[in-house]
Amino acid sequence: MSYDPENIFARILRGDAPCIKVCETENTLAFMDVMPQSEGHVLVIPKEPAANIHDVSDEGLAACMRTVKRVAAAVREALKPDGMLIAQFNGAAAGQTVEHIHVHIIPRWGDVPLKAHGRERADDAQLEALAQRIRAALAAG
Amino acid sequence: MSYDPENIFARILRGDAPCIKVCETENTLAFMDVMPQSEGHVLVIPKEPAANIHDVSDEGLAACMRTVKRVAAAVREALKPDGMLIAQFNGAAAGQTVEHIHVHIIPRWGDVPLKAHGRERADDAQLEALAQRIRAALAAG
Repeated sequence: MSYDPENIFARILRGDAPCIKVCETENTLAFMDVMPQSEGHVLVIPKEPAANIHDVSDEGLAACMRTVKRVAAAVREALKPDGMLIAQFNGAAAGQTVEHIHVHIIPRWGDVPLKAHGRERADDAQLEALAQRIRAALAAG
Repeated sequence: MSYDPENIFARILRGDAPCIKVCETENTLAFMDVMPQSEGHVLVIPKEPAANIHDVSDEGLAACMRTVKRVAAAVREALKPDGMLIAQFNGAAAGQTVEHIHVHIIPRWGDVPLKAHGRERADDAQLEALAQRIRAALAAG
């Protein structure tokens, strides 16, 4: 699959589109999913231009997962979910909607069902408030 | 969470329980999910005794994801799915049923819905036939 440099995550990485940032490392970026499947849904992406798990480098994937682990711990600390789903979709048939590899961190609470993927735009102020709590946990951890 | 050395994946790693192996590396093991959500559903686990993403080492997680990437490519080559879901569940609220960290590689075809997680035991001969095709793709790749 050829990589489209105009996909929304490429534009976020270039600073051409906004995001509610959770944290950034040399090779990765974590930000709030604007169409969250649950409260505290964060996305982590490697900065390298790779569409999916088949295209990303081993190093990019490892860096991505280090950030996933670190952010997942902060989400747990900040929001105290009962569980956490880590998911990564490859191809439209698997639910991928942006052609830059991304890992979903989705907190789960009891029997609260997940919202459908990529359907309902969340309120930015609410996302920012959640991001602040997660960033505080990252800083404390 | 304390790690239970009697969980089924720990027993598989010790050779005390069987599995239909796809591949093994120094630090990871890949085998067929016996209650697959779709045809070609493979699990990848690190060998270290960690219950979930919060407990696993960065190195164990990176090794696990290298194997996930390699096996996902082989599943794609062998079974030609339309897409691939990579998922990792932490806690019963997120669907975790075995308390040893594991990553699901779940091929997706068009609109074929996923089977429920961990419900229906597959036929071992069919799983072995799928494993053979995936192993052949690994050997060729």
